[in-house]
Amino acid sequence: MTDAVTPADIFKVGFGFWASKTLLSAVELGLFTELARGPADLVTLSRGLGLHDRAGRDFLDALVALKMLDREEGLYGNTPETDHFLDRAKPSYVGGLLEMANARLYQSWGALTEALKTGRNQNEAKESGDVFAELYADPDRLRGFLAAMSGVSLGAAQAIAAKFPWKDHKTFVDIGTAQGMVPVTIARAHNHLSGAGYDLPEVKPIFDEFIAWHGMQERVKFLSGNFFTDPLPTADVLIMGHILHDWDLSQKRTLLEKAYAALPKGGALIVYESIIDDARRENAFGLLMSLNMLIETPGGFDYTASDCVSWMKEAGFAETRVQHLVGPDTMVVGIK
Amino acid sequence: MTDAVTPADIFKVGFGFWASKTLLSAVELGLFTELARGPADLVTLSRGLGLHDRAGRDFLDALVALKMLDREEGLYGNTPETDHFLDRAKPSYVGGLLEMANARLYQSWGALTEALKTGRNQNEAKESGDVFAELYADPDRLRGFLAAMSGVSLGAAQAIAAKFPWKDHKTFVDIGTAQGMVPVTIARAHNHLSGAGYDLPEVKPIFDEFIAWHGMQERVKFLSGNFFTDPLPTADVLIMGHILHDWDLSQKRTLLEKAYAALPKGGALIVYESIIDDARRENAFGLLMSLNMLIETPGGFDYTASDCVSWMKEAGFAETRVQHLVGPDTMVVGIK
Repeated sequence: MTDAVTPADIFKVGFGFWASKTLLSAVELGLFTELARGPADLVTLSRGLGLHDRAGRDFLDALVALKMLDREEGLYGNTPETDHFLDRAKPSYVGGLLEMANARLYQSWGALTEALKTGRNQNEAKESGDVFAELYADPDRLRGFLAAMSGVSLGAAQAIAAKFPWKDHKTFVDIGTAQGMVPVTIARAHNHLSGAGYDLPEVKPIFDEFIAWHGMQERVKFLSGNFFTDPLPTADVLIMGHILHDWDLSQKRTLLEKAYAALPKGGALIVYESIIDDARRENAFGLLMSLNMLIETPGGFDYTASDCVSWMKEAGFAETRVQHLVGPDTMVVGIK
Repeated sequence: MTDAVTPADIFKVGFGFWASKTLLSAVELGLFTELARGPADLVTLSRGLGLHDRAGRDFLDALVALKMLDREEGLYGNTPETDHFLDRAKPSYVGGLLEMANARLYQSWGALTEALKTGRNQNEAKESGDVFAELYADPDRLRGFLAAMSGVSLGAAQAIAAKFPWKDHKTFVDIGTAQGMVPVTIARAHNHLSGAGYDLPEVKPIFDEFIAWHGMQERVKFLSGNFFTDPLPTADVLIMGHILHDWDLSQKRTLLEKAYAALPKGGALIVYESIIDDARRENAFGLLMSLNMLIETPGGFDYTASDCVSWMKEAGFAETRVQHLVGPDTMVVGIK
């Protein structure tokens, strides 16, 4: 036993669910949307959000200590980050992902030990095994899921818009586009591009609404289809973000083969998500995302860039390159 | 929108429950106890712990990325911290606290939003309101709770042993002692002291076992009583750690008054826990602990050192001083 060895880091990780759930409840209650109108004191906020006298002050001060709120002279206000990303009224809102975490994942992850022992998903599709059928069958749940996907995609979309050589290409399609955050972000950054989002037909009204909200309906269209039962649409560049990790290895290979078939010679496939570092010892978020696929899907898993490059080569891609995007996200580009 | 504003910190906190639950499941499965015998490869560990083929590698590598495990040439091993604190076979084991978090608190915290709106606890005592009656009525649950309290007390106990002027005193009693981690740690550090742990009679066999395991039965005794219905025992120094925050303000004042009554003139009361900084903007753990009291108790809450000093003065204490211990823990000392 030495003084240098303390349990502080163990407790910090082990009790991380306290901070996490506090932020998730704040998003659920609309706290940041409320404060985007202007700073407010404890009494006003408690009344507006329906917080009990016993709970409000600790809740808000905990969010100050977590650096999710500011507090000056008794008035609580958003930080620049929470104002930008957690105000539902702003197009930059990414809280859909946290709403989904709060409404679905927090509880499903409570059964992690069972998932580790059985290898079976632990969400609302625990019996049926088909999480996407469950999600797409319920319009409210679908809307929440698609908004969540915008939250997870925004940062990577901005980085792809900046880092990929778009000047060499004219058209692109985002495969499994959800609300269309990726095509909106890329098309807005590059006026010469025409883009589309491809997803199941149930997604169209939600996509169209999102694209119109961003005023991008002239250059971003919706294409309807099922990427397992239909051929993929063609374009100079195809994008698959947070798609491959949902599926087992055989399905991953099928999707890469179909992308290869749909591309023209010289065309590019961009695969991106929280790709695990090749040594599998740095990208904690990517490794935990793979456990999230265990919780959420019957066979999905995340993978390293090396894994992806080898599958792309097997599918026929002539060249590949790997480029870090932002935070835990990396893209692997395959050229036909 | 500026490039400097990213949602990375928001997602890091919001998805903190992934890392948290992964560590909690590892403790539940006995991973660190298994690895304390020596490093092991994926196949051996998966077989030993009953991990499914789909899950084991991501689970273990995620723990490597979270710095809770090492991995060298395909062999997983404990870090110095996890070997010392999360091996059930060692007296330094603090995983009881994480076992309790995993078995009880993770799920109770899922109802945080309801607690924030109603002010009512959300654990197994949601109906009865008396969490301690529920805990003490079930021997297994009581044993788990008392072990958890040892986990939360060890670091602070070492700091109190080092920082309080024990040479000026001969006897002490730890009020609400649980297994007796605090009296063991203090008595071991100071050979001239005789100590006792005070708790409800149900605790005695568990306390006696723990004290014997540490070989401290000569200088650390058990005193049985109920700190609300009985007078407190007398000693040169009384200690209350993680006690006051369980109770409402009126009950807190009662306990301080009873401690004052039990002390000799010149005697000291040491109150310690994750006391909130006076500005209520730094000690996130203390503020979240107060929300944990919302989840766990009908009226408990954490408080600042200033709050505690003012209650001690009202109870009659002549002098007070505030001293940081370790991590989120601080002690407030009152002298009669």
